[in-house]
Formats: sequence, structure tokens, C-alpha cells
Amino acid sequence: MASVSETQAILLVHGPDRKGIVAAFSQTLFGHGCGIVSSEQHTDAESSVFYQRIVFDAAALHTDRVSLERGIDEVASRLGMTCEVRWPKPKRVAIFVSKYAHCLWELLLRHDAGELPGVEIVQIVSNHEDLRHVAEHFSVPYAVFKVTKDTKRAVEDQELALLKEKQVDLVVLARYMQIITDEFCDAFPHRVINIHHSFLPAFIGSKPYHRAHARGVKLVGATAHYATADLDEGPIIEQDCARISHKNSIDDLLRKGRVLEKNVLVTAVRAHVEDRIIVYESKCVVFGE
Amino acid sequence: MASVSETQAILLVHGPDRKGIVAAFSQTLFGHGCGIVSSEQHTDAESSVFYQRIVFDAAALHTDRVSLERGIDEVASRLGMTCEVRWPKPKRVAIFVSKYAHCLWELLLRHDAGELPGVEIVQIVSNHEDLRHVAEHFSVPYAVFKVTKDTKRAVEDQELALLKEKQVDLVVLARYMQIITDEFCDAFPHRVINIHHSFLPAFIGSKPYHRAHARGVKLVGATAHYATADLDEGPIIEQDCARISHKNSIDDLLRKGRVLEKNVLVTAVRAHVEDRIIVYESKCVVFGE
Amino acid sequence: MASVSETQAILLVHGPDRKGIVAAFSQTLFGHGCGIVSSEQHTDAESSVFYQRIVFDAAALHTDRVSLERGIDEVASRLGMTCEVRWPKPKRVAIFVSKYAHCLWELLLRHDAGELPGVEIVQIVSNHEDLRHVAEHFSVPYAVFKVTKDTKRAVEDQELALLKEKQVDLVVLARYMQIITDEFCDAFPHRVINIHHSFLPAFIGSKPYHRAHARGVKLVGATAHYATADLDEGPIIEQDCARISHKNSIDDLLRKGRVLEKNVLVTAVRAHVEDRIIVYESKCVVFGE
Amino acid sequence: MASVSETQAILLVHGPDRKGIVAAFSQTLFGHGCGIVSSEQHTDAESSVFYQRIVFDAAALHTDRVSLERGIDEVASRLGMTCEVRWPKPKRVAIFVSKYAHCLWELLLRHDAGELPGVEIVQIVSNHEDLRHVAEHFSVPYAVFKVTKDTKRAVEDQELALLKEKQVDLVVLARYMQIITDEFCDAFPHRVINIHHSFLPAFIGSKPYHRAHARGVKLVGATAHYATADLDEGPIIEQDCARISHKNSIDDLLRKGRVLEKNVLVTAVRAHVEDRIIVYESKCVVFGE
Repeated sequence: MASVSETQAILLVHGPDRKGIVAAFSQTLFGHGCGIVSSEQHTDAESSVFYQRIVFDAAALHTDRVSLERGIDEVASRLGMTCEVRWPKPKRVAIFVSKYAHCLWELLLRHDAGELPGVEIVQIVSNHEDLRHVAEHFSVPYAVFKVTKDTKRAVEDQELALLKEKQVDLVVLARYMQIITDEFCDAFPHRVINIHHSFLPAFIGSKPYHRAHARGVKLVGATAHYATADLDEGPIIEQDCARISHKNSIDDLLRKGRVLEKNVLVTAVRAHVEDRIIVYESKCVVFGE
Repeated sequence: MASVSETQAILLVHGPDRKGIVAAFSQTLFGHGCGIVSSEQHTDAESSVFYQRIVFDAAALHTDRVSLERGIDEVASRLGMTCEVRWPKPKRVAIFVSKYAHCLWELLLRHDAGELPGVEIVQIVSNHEDLRHVAEHFSVPYAVFKVTKDTKRAVEDQELALLKEKQVDLVVLARYMQIITDEFCDAFPHRVINIHHSFLPAFIGSKPYHRAHARGVKLVGATAHYATADLDEGPIIEQDCARISHKNSIDDLLRKGRVLEKNVLVTAVRAHVEDRIIVYESKCVVFGE
Repeated sequence: MASVSETQAILLVHGPDRKGIVAAFSQTLFGHGCGIVSSEQHTDAESSVFYQRIVFDAAALHTDRVSLERGIDEVASRLGMTCEVRWPKPKRVAIFVSKYAHCLWELLLRHDAGELPGVEIVQIVSNHEDLRHVAEHFSVPYAVFKVTKDTKRAVEDQELALLKEKQVDLVVLARYMQIITDEFCDAFPHRVINIHHSFLPAFIGSKPYHRAHARGVKLVGATAHYATADLDEGPIIEQDCARISHKNSIDDLLRKGRVLEKNVLVTAVRAHVEDRIIVYESKCVVFGE
Repeated sequence: MASVSETQAILLVHGPDRKGIVAAFSQTLFGHGCGIVSSEQHTDAESSVFYQRIVFDAAALHTDRVSLERGIDEVASRLGMTCEVRWPKPKRVAIFVSKYAHCLWELLLRHDAGELPGVEIVQIVSNHEDLRHVAEHFSVPYAVFKVTKDTKRAVEDQELALLKEKQVDLVVLARYMQIITDEFCDAFPHRVINIHHSFLPAFIGSKPYHRAHARGVKLVGATAHYATADLDEGPIIEQDCARISHKNSIDDLLRKGRVLEKNVLVTAVRAHVEDRIIVYESKCVVFGE
């Protein structure tokens, strides 16, 4: 269990594997009075890269944040590791939608049920008016930016300005039916999560359920990944699939897919906001909840 | 439940959907004294093609097989349908293997446990000596045909001669690591089942687990399909998948994959030998067990 | 696929298995001009009871409903079968809730998305005010009936009067935290669906997730069943389960359980309103979607 | 990934949670020259008990085993923890069977495929002659001990003597159809793994598939657990389940169950022999593979 707490901070570490890493960081935390609440580590056998996520009790810090960070930096520098401390702080999330409502509802309802602790949903952005009533039910601001092929970059700049103003940490594309540009992705590196309605890398691109139906597959899937410049090629965070049969029409696939999409997306968002993901090369280490 | 019985025959029907098909065939069977044990039907909404599988009690036939078939043909001809009666008769199966043993063992063990009723495993064919001991444990003939690029077609002809001699009805490629030619497929249309070690259409071709690992997917799969001239593009019979994580090495994927492969393959073979599959265009209608 | 259509009627048949049933009913439907859209049948091997669900095209009826029903009754009577025709007609559904919102939201949202065709959600009943805002979002009447141990039967009579007034066909207990009495169940035989938050028959009764956590199980489940006089013993319609580990707290089990509960409940409601369920003894035949 | 290696040792720790545990043990290992290969920890929120499993590189030890163990004991004693070092050493396994072959075959075949590294299957024990041919295929000794109600304890003593002679570390009951006594369990505390053919705690006791069929459940399961004095109440290691329908006969349930049983059992045995399990009270912490 890796719930976000107001008194728990997280240390994320990665770099070349070597002896003594675990000892050094745990000693440093202990020296500053911080107990380790939980810790998970992974060494990629092929690249020999070491990854660790340490949840520690920040409330018990008997020096101060600056001193602890300095201590960690010294260890990191000595061992050649990259470190980052995530102090307890709400994550500010913006959700992008078009006309499909299911992922938006699921995010808002499960946030409402307390399943996304430490998250503030500060903005909903859409290219259509259709889902304004959903935003209003939860009293979340809803901004509409119409997009055409010619205006896409200009509109994105307006959107980015809004996200900056709202100090957004994470953008969730909840079945947003516009391809975002590389510039947009670059503005939020590994901080834009997209849900694709197929079991990637099968059926990259548009209308995956129609193509799944045409191919006669016996399972349909959904994939949450970080959006990158390459369409549907970003690091995969979470996937799931469901059984179908020849009896299922395309409408059935869409229906079963909606259940997959919303669950996979929420699972991925939870992993991100709980700082359980480290991206390396084109893959995600997703530490357990 | 669609177990094969020594007294049950199966009528497979397909053709353009229209009124009265079900009435006509059920009336014909009833008229010959045959009770319907179970029946499943499907109409493809897009193509308006009707498919039906009727299991009927052949023991109670009070005319004879020829008369019943003639009666069915008359109805079929009047309604423009294609029909086939499968009288109770053992299916003769040949299994092709290379060095991986798990699918071969699973087929033989589950056959031994009575899970493939009405099946006789009459021949194992391999391009290697390695698995002869498995064949011997079950007293199944084991023939080795070494294959090189230059001899492939000639060797296949020898294999086909053996299959003909053994009156083989179904060929199962149980992780047979040779691409079979179009000529071989044509000799057994929709009667060669292959197991591919990925969730098709993802990772078509060789080393799918390695590519799944490189892509960082969170599920691995396996697919049983009829072999056709197009590699890994044949009609899909059955698929399944299993959850993996960043912690899993390629060896872990191979291990989890073996469990998927053997189960998916046996499920597909069961469906085929119980006459539960009708292939249309490039897809399989697989009636329920 | 068994979608409800405005022109499709359903014939449900059950009774002692014998020859000629399929022929007789399909002939009768054909004789009245009705094409069979789909048909599924099952014979229980132990009891030799035959079950069939036939979807037929009611629009093409060239006699009239009374004549067809008379024809069917004659066949049924001759063969000793019990029959029922369900003409296309909206199902009127009431949902009972307490304070947990997830099942209510899921039912309303998926109804809104068109996943419960032919259903009208006409009333929400609760013993608390808490979820009135949900009802209001969808403009469904919301009635509150406070319940105490002493008033339960009297209150139920008021509820039953309201359900009668609203001509309710189906009652869905969407995590309604009151045990309903036998009298209530009797008023809606096999027309009250409950969702239990465990994998029945494990953890019958209250606080199943707490008991699952204490027992150290590795899977949690949810079960939708028809409510009967025996608590949690009614015929099971649908079940599903999810993997947990020692890392999961009770809160995690509750969270994972909510996803199971809402999906299992909607799946069960879909099966009921599409007339795909026949209850026999204490079990459900649930024909495929 | 937690594969057993000839150069990797494992430190298992549990006891009251407090600050500095991770730091202390990692420092000690580092001080003796041992790099940490992987580490997983868990704190039970209710009991505040801390659990950790550390895999470390024993090959690089620059003192000796006795010194390291002394160092660990000192830390453990100071922190009030219970510790155990598992040096790399083959686990000697005995398998008990009756007449059902599927679990025995699966264990032997997957051992043969290298999926149980560090395991030696040294003895098969049965109360019947039936499966001797399986043992012979893998050249494993097969001993038959006929059991009657009156001789059970006496026969168990003979079995225990054989297990002692063969220096057996783990006993696997692979569908062994005899209830073992408390005395036997006590001789191998948390070292007897049983496979029960239901989703415990549902259907404790005999004929679970028959009872599942009678109850009309929609999923069947299997459970691997440590055998204890209380029948089917021991700590659960692993569970899985599979979907069934009204169409499935008891034979179908048995067939689907066999696949579950053998996979669940092998998964549990893998977890045990890789020293990934710590039992506390009546539950298992099973660290990830």
C-alpha cells in the first residue's frame, strides 16, 4: 500500500548499479531522523541500472528539508546516482476530454470517493461544450478550445498558458480526440498520460475496436501510456484486456472497452500521482501500490 | 457442454440469413427421429450470414444416414445454405514439434486424462530427435524429418505422404519452429492449428517475448490460429494473456508464456475436434463448449 | 449479441427434455411469419430439464400477438413445457441505495450511455438523503424512507406501494444497507437483484472485506444474485474477482471491491432486462449476450 | 525477478516496526562486502510488524559466513528483530500423490524445464501404485505406503522416517487424498504445501466442485496453502479462479479446475523455495517474484 500521506515524502533514485546504494541512502535518512515507511527497488538486468523508491516519514525530520536534500545530494554525487525528493504536496491535475464521458466521470467520481488522495483536479479542457455539465456537477472549471488543423499550435499555446496559470502538474487525456503536438508533449515531459483504446502495440492509431473486430481477435484491450512525439509509442504504464467472442458486435467491443479504458486510466493516474513511476528509456518502472 | 459422444452427430450450416432456416432443419431432423441435443446459432450483422451448429442424437435415427443427408441437402438447396453432417468418428491428429516440450506434453497428458474425447493422436513429427522420449512414454510414433532451406518442399512432401498414410484429420503445430509453406497449408485447409507466442496482431513474427520486453508491455499473450499462407495472419481461434511487470526478465516472460501457450493451444484443439468452429472469411465462429 | 430492440420479442421455454421441442416452436414462429433472430438452448444433464431462449422478429408477425401466443400455448401444452413471450416493452427499474454511491452512479451513467436499452429508471429509493444530488443530476425521482428495526415492515409496505404506483418491473439493491424481508422478496419474485461484496459462498453476511483481509485471501470477489428469503443464498447471476496481496490494506480491498461490485451488478442487470435469465431451482441459466 | 542463484543468499527479517531497521541491516551487509541484489519490505499496518526480504551477493562476502551471521544477530538483538539467513543451498522436495496425475506431472515437467531452480525432487510418496510410471520417467524414487484409518499414524511415522532419511525440506501434497495428522504437520511447520480444489474459504472439505456446481457459482477456484492442524484453514499462499457457466457439467468444472490447481500449486512452490514467504499469524506475506 502506497497511499499518499501529508507527512510522507518520497525519494526516487536511479543510476548505475553498485554496492552500498541502499545502505548509503537509508543511513542518510536515518541520520536525519526519518524512518523508512516502505521501499521498493529494481535493477534492470540488461542495463545494470538501479531504481529505488523510498517512502519516508517526513514528519519526524529532526533537521530540515534543505539539510536532508543536501545530504542526499552528497550521497548521490558520490555514487553517481540521480535523486529526487518529492515532499508531500498536492498534485494539480488537468483533464482533457472531447465527447466521450466515461473516463472523465470515472476520474471525478473516484477522486470524489477519496481514491486519488493528494490530487486536486483544477481544470477540465475540451474542444467541445458537451461535457460541461459533468464539470459543473463537481464544480471544476471547464474551458473550451475549438481546434482546427490550422489553429492547432496556436490553440495549444493558449491551453499551455492556462495550464501554467493553474500550475498544473499532470495532464490526463481522457479520450481526448485530438493528436497533441510534440511541443505540447515537451512542455510536460512524462507528465501527459493518454489512454489508448487497444492493447498496444496492436492496433496503433484510429478506430482500434473496428480493426479488432475485423481481425477477429478474442480479446480487446486498453493501454495507458505517457504521450510522446511518436503516436501511441510512449512508455506504457498500464494495460488490461477483456474476452470477446464472434457474438460481439462493434458496439459490444466499444462497451467492454469503455470499462477497460476507465479502469486502466485511473490505475495509471494513481501510479503517477503516488510517485510510483520511474521512466527509463522508453519503459516504465511502476512500483507496486 | 459440447462433449463428443459416440452417438451424437453434428450438423454445421452457414449461408445467407433468411426466415425459416431453424424451422426447416429442426423439422428435418425430427422427421428422421433425431432429437436435438444442443444448438447454437449466430448471424453476422454486417454480412447477414447465418451460422448454426446442431448436435443431434444419431443413435435414434429411424431412417438411415443417406436418407437424412439427402433430406438435409434438399433443405439446404432450397434455402441456399451450405451444410455438412459430421457423423461420430474419431479425429486423427498429428502433432509437429521441434525442441520445446511444453505444448506436446500438455496435449498428450490432457488427451490421456480424457479431455480430448474422440481424438486419436496417431503421429508426432519433428525436425529434431529431442522429444522422442515423450512420444515413447505415450507409445505414439515419432518421425524425424530434418529440414534445411533447400530441402523444405521436398521434406514437406514426405511429411504429407506420412500424414496421408496415417489418415490424419488435423495437424497441430505445437511450437514447431519451421515456417510451413503455402502448399502444406493448402493440403490441410483450416486443419492446421498453430500456436503463436504473442497476443496477435501484436508482435507478428519471431522472438515476440523479446520484443514485448523491449516495448515494456504490461501483459503478454498467446494466440492459437489456423495456419494460412500469410504468416501469423490466419483466423484466430483462441487467445489469452497474463500480467507482467518491470520486474520480469525475458526468462520470466518465456515461463509465463509457456503456461499461456499450452492452455490456449489445447483449448483451440478442443474446439476444433468438437466441430465447434466455422471459419468465415478470415475469422472464426467458435461455438461455446 | 442480445441487444433489446423495439421490434424483437423473446420466447422463453423450459420443461422436461424431449424430442421435437426445437422443431415445434420454430415451426410455429415461422408459420406466423416470424424469423428467428437468435436462439440459445440448454439441457441440464442431471434434471433433464430443457431451457430455450428464442429472439424473434415481432415486426414481421403476419397474424397477431394473440394468435401467436395461442399457437405457442398449444405447442407448449402438447409438449408439457412452460412458455412465456416477452413482447418488446420498456422495463421499469427502481434502484435502492444507502450511502455508497458507486453502484448507483454506474447504473445511471451506463444507462445514459445507452448500455441498458429498453430500460427506464423510474425511481430511486434510499434510507438516507445523501445521494439525492446523484438522482437530481439524472432527473430521477428520489424518495427517502427512514428505517428502524421496529418500522421495517411498515416502511417496506410504503415502498412497495410506491413501486406498484410506478409500475416497477425490477428492483436493484445497489449496496442498499438494509436486509429486506421475505415479504418484500415475495412481492418481486426473481425481480430483486442484490450485489454482495464477496465471492459467495465465501464470506456470507456483513463486513466481507474485513473478513477476507483477516483470512489472508489472495483474491476478492463480488456476486450479483436474486434476493431471496435466505440471506446471500439466492440464485447467482454473475461473479467476478480481483487479485490482492499482503500489501493491500482493508481500504485497498474496499477500493478494488467497488470496481468489481459496480461492474458485476451492471452485467447482472443487463442480463435480466434483456430476458436472458431463466431461474431453475436455486440456479440461474444466463444465456450469452 | 527473484531467481535462486548459487551465489545469492537471502536475509529474512521480521519484528516490531521502528526506525533504522533498513539502514542497520543494509549497513551490516555492506560492511561485509555484500551488495544488495534486491530487497522488498512490508509493514503490517494493524500489527505494526515489519517484514523484509533482502537478496544479497554472497559471493562477494569478504569476511565469512559466521562473521556475517554474528553481525546480523547483533543488529537483530539490538532492534528486537527475528532474522534468518538462507545461504544458497538446494531445497530437497518430496511430493505426495494419490491417483490424480496432473499436479505431479506439472511439478516434474516445470522442474525439468528449469522453472524450479535450486530444487531437487528427491522422493515421491503415494498411497497407490498408479503413478509409479510418472516417477520412473523422471527417475525419482517412488514409495507406496498403503493407509487405512487404523494405521494412519503408524504409516505416517514410516513416511516421516523416509523424509528424514532423504533430508527433505519441503513436502508438497499434490492432490494427495489423505488428511494428514497434526503430528505430521508439526514435523514440518510451514513446510507442507497443500492444494485445495476450491476458492477457500468457500467449499472447505470434500467434493468442492460438486458443491460449486450445486450452488450455481459462476467462477471456480483453487487455493495453495500451508497445511495446518485445522483442515483447509492454513495460511493461504496463492489462489486463482476461472469462469464457468450453466453450460458446464461437473466434468467441465473438474477439467477447468485441474488447470487452476496445477498452476496455483507450482506458483506456491516457487514462492516457497525462493524463500519469498514469511508466515505471520495465519497469513502469508508473499514477496514478489
